Amino acid sequence: MATLQQLADLVGGQIQGDAALEINRVFPIDLAGDGDITFIANPKYLTKLKDSRASAIIVAPGVDAPEHNLLICANPYLAFAKILTCLQVPDLPVQGVMPGAMVAESATIAESATIHPGCVIGENVVIGAGTTLFANVVVYDNVSIGENCLLHAGSIVREGSVLGQRVILQPAAVIGSDGFGFAPDGSSYYKIPQVGIVVLEDDVEIGSCSCIDRAALGETRIRRGTKIDNLVQIGHNAEIGEDTVMAAQAGVSGSTKIGGHCTFGGQSAVAGHLTIGDNVTIGGRGGATGNVKPNQVLSGLPLMPHKQWLKASMSMAKLPEMRKDLQQLKKRLEDLEAQLKED
Amino acid sequence: MATLQQLADLVGGQIQGDAALEINRVFPIDLAGDGDITFIANPKYLTKLKDSRASAIIVAPGVDAPEHNLLICANPYLAFAKILTCLQVPDLPVQGVMPGAMVAESATIAESATIHPGCVIGENVVIGAGTTLFANVVVYDNVSIGENCLLHAGSIVREGSVLGQRVILQPAAVIGSDGFGFAPDGSSYYKIPQVGIVVLEDDVEIGSCSCIDRAALGETRIRRGTKIDNLVQIGHNAEIGEDTVMAAQAGVSGSTKIGGHCTFGGQSAVAGHLTIGDNVTIGGRGGATGNVKPNQVLSGLPLMPHKQWLKASMSMAKLPEMRKDLQQLKKRLEDLEAQLKED
Amino acid sequence: MATLQQLADLVGGQIQGDAALEINRVFPIDLAGDGDITFIANPKYLTKLKDSRASAIIVAPGVDAPEHNLLICANPYLAFAKILTCLQVPDLPVQGVMPGAMVAESATIAESATIHPGCVIGENVVIGAGTTLFANVVVYDNVSIGENCLLHAGSIVREGSVLGQRVILQPAAVIGSDGFGFAPDGSSYYKIPQVGIVVLEDDVEIGSCSCIDRAALGETRIRRGTKIDNLVQIGHNAEIGEDTVMAAQAGVSGSTKIGGHCTFGGQSAVAGHLTIGDNVTIGGRGGATGNVKPNQVLSGLPLMPHKQWLKASMSMAKLPEMRKDLQQLKKRLEDLEAQLKED
Repeated sequence: MATLQQLADLVGGQIQGDAALEINRVFPIDLAGDGDITFIANPKYLTKLKDSRASAIIVAPGVDAPEHNLLICANPYLAFAKILTCLQVPDLPVQGVMPGAMVAESATIAESATIHPGCVIGENVVIGAGTTLFANVVVYDNVSIGENCLLHAGSIVREGSVLGQRVILQPAAVIGSDGFGFAPDGSSYYKIPQVGIVVLEDDVEIGSCSCIDRAALGETRIRRGTKIDNLVQIGHNAEIGEDTVMAAQAGVSGSTKIGGHCTFGGQSAVAGHLTIGDNVTIGGRGGATGNVKPNQVLSGLPLMPHKQWLKASMSMAKLPEMRKDLQQLKKRLEDLEAQLKED
Repeated sequence: MATLQQLADLVGGQIQGDAALEINRVFPIDLAGDGDITFIANPKYLTKLKDSRASAIIVAPGVDAPEHNLLICANPYLAFAKILTCLQVPDLPVQGVMPGAMVAESATIAESATIHPGCVIGENVVIGAGTTLFANVVVYDNVSIGENCLLHAGSIVREGSVLGQRVILQPAAVIGSDGFGFAPDGSSYYKIPQVGIVVLEDDVEIGSCSCIDRAALGETRIRRGTKIDNLVQIGHNAEIGEDTVMAAQAGVSGSTKIGGHCTFGGQSAVAGHLTIGDNVTIGGRGGATGNVKPNQVLSGLPLMPHKQWLKASMSMAKLPEMRKDLQQLKKRLEDLEAQLKED
Repeated sequence: MATLQQLADLVGGQIQGDAALEINRVFPIDLAGDGDITFIANPKYLTKLKDSRASAIIVAPGVDAPEHNLLICANPYLAFAKILTCLQVPDLPVQGVMPGAMVAESATIAESATIHPGCVIGENVVIGAGTTLFANVVVYDNVSIGENCLLHAGSIVREGSVLGQRVILQPAAVIGSDGFGFAPDGSSYYKIPQVGIVVLEDDVEIGSCSCIDRAALGETRIRRGTKIDNLVQIGHNAEIGEDTVMAAQAGVSGSTKIGGHCTFGGQSAVAGHLTIGDNVTIGGRGGATGNVKPNQVLSGLPLMPHKQWLKASMSMAKLPEMRKDLQQLKKRLEDLEAQLKED
């Protein structure tokens, strides 16, 4: 619970209405009632303002609604996220190494870290202050995990990986599995050992069942602030820049370097050994088969400017008709040619 | 083991032949022998009937095979499934909370439930009668799991999730991982806490390594009887109707609402904030980028009627040839135009 | 550490330079220094040879670089892999059944096997000599695992599965989850029990979060030497031949039979009940919707020869332009036809 004033202070906003109002939770605008705060991030939902029964509403400057208590701030969506965190995300209790956790003697666990039952922590592991490992997390030898990280149940961090501060692993995320490398040896394959590591920098989040492969030699690196959704594959020796966002089921092949501030849609893919520039957006199911220069919005396989792809993909359904048209034109042209020859 | 009569009673079928025959197992028609029952669900395999050495054969009405013991019923495939369940799926033994399972004191576990070693059960969890959790399942705080559920090894259910009766989770399924939501904050991202829940209604099955994200606010809901294959992604706040079937590696983005009795092929995808009607079939790799009305069979990206897609996709390979044709037609047309001008 | 001579003996190569040189590790050519060996597998990187500060370089025959210590062998990439294994992959210590592992009394664990904490091993399981199970692996009843296998943390092997020698499971791989089979029963579905098994033959490797479904009846089989990357789906009753390689996020539907020595690109897919011949390569995102004869390189959906697909896919972006051209040609042709009629 917080007063509207406290929330305004938290997000740097202005109040229009009752600053002493007590707010208990954030709730969707249609359902919010007494004690709830809601938000309008998109101007097209301003029409919902009138009927809302929320006690307070987060809005952008310029909204005229004297009948409501308003919390006015430049970025209502960000304010919503911060207020939601404040009101509804409880601090995780510090519980130390809980009974049923198995920690190697050589591991160094900060006093304020929490290791839930069923976790298995290897030799020489270092785990920083305020970090929580939920149940059944496995950390192999020689891993370093920073402060205030959150490793959800069943996530696995293989040997030598380095996690920065405030890294989040969703359940069953796999960090440091072997890269996929084999040398042909006659008609069979010989496994190329993957002796490199994975580095997840500060504020990286990795989704459930996503796999970040360790490097063959050297490292696979995900830079600060990058967010990766569920079921994503990042191949060995790949490097992803800062503040890049990658939606579910995307795949990045080995040794590819992706810039910062990129956005990858669901099920998109990037082939191996490529360079993708900064500020590149690749739409859902898009596939990069060559290098991509910065500052572009692309879709399709192969990639093309998104607007072109919209047109091209709409033409797909017309293909059979186009073929028929082409046949008919050919026939009519032949008729004309024959007629002119006769003349 | 059961007599043919007992099996006929089980599936509501008629016997033509020896009702007292003892049947030990279901086996494929080519391999079945003494003591085996087999089935013909598809009339095109009726030719195999003659040579089968099975002791009995499940068939639809109207099959003429006096040399065989027949179990005649309207839906042989369903009868096969029921008889297979009867003969070859052993009842799971009730073993209670087994040594090596870690259960919070505040959890309520039905006496007839079985919790295998390595499971970790959180505070205030409720687990219903006849439910089995195989080894190393993790259930976070405040989860409710109904009766006769089956949670396979390594599956993870995060806080507050609600599972109905007879829900099945295959190994490493993840229920309630954070939805993928971030608010831009300058050039970085601020995590939007995901404080909603997941509800899996009765008779839902979730495949291995499939991820059902918790809602940001409110709930993600999979309705009664829906079956989801392996490696499928369901985004936050999505809603899937009853008796819908979704094949492996399909993906549903956040806030999308899918109807009942739909069928989604492998690697298909649905973008966010869409509505897909009832009885919609989307073929493998199909991708919905807009709302879809009920009662359609669609394929492709963008979606089109499946038959049209079959033609359009076959035309894809002809595209280079079509371009060449188009160039030649243009040239010939220009020649004709020039010739007519001269005339 | 090894002498250059020992490494040459290991890979069957010739030395040009100092055979007594001591080598500590393999390192990339740009970064290698004193005590490092590096390699040039691709002739286009021979230009890097001159500036390398590596103590020794693995090259193919015919390279002229008298200033370097060379290890000359027919297949430098394979030699690199073998030397890397020799120098940098430590033998796993034999630790037996470690404290915190839970093993059924009826299981037979070889003395030289290692079972890490948190593993749960079911009834009648057999685990061969030299095999290591990392933490939190779950092995259901009646599983047989051969010698010198490596099961990484959190991998799960369901009942009755059979693993040969030297099988590797990456973290969270799932072997033997239920195949996706349901019989329509009115408007709902009745689960078809999956009572078959999975067989992984010798030298098979399965990636993180990949799912190999058990057969409905009979078996799903991955033949000797086949390597499967992360997040791959193999449906029930599928059969994959020897020495086939399948990249991340590929999917194979049920009852499909794939030949030996095939290569599948990332996110590729094969529909159900198909036969794919030996030596077939399917490019990334390619999709087989029909049977495929051996010895082909194919791409696209539907599949076409890879070279044709390259052209066809490049034409995709031209589709809107082609439609416009087609309209104009039609118009000009009509004009000509009209003009000729007038004449």
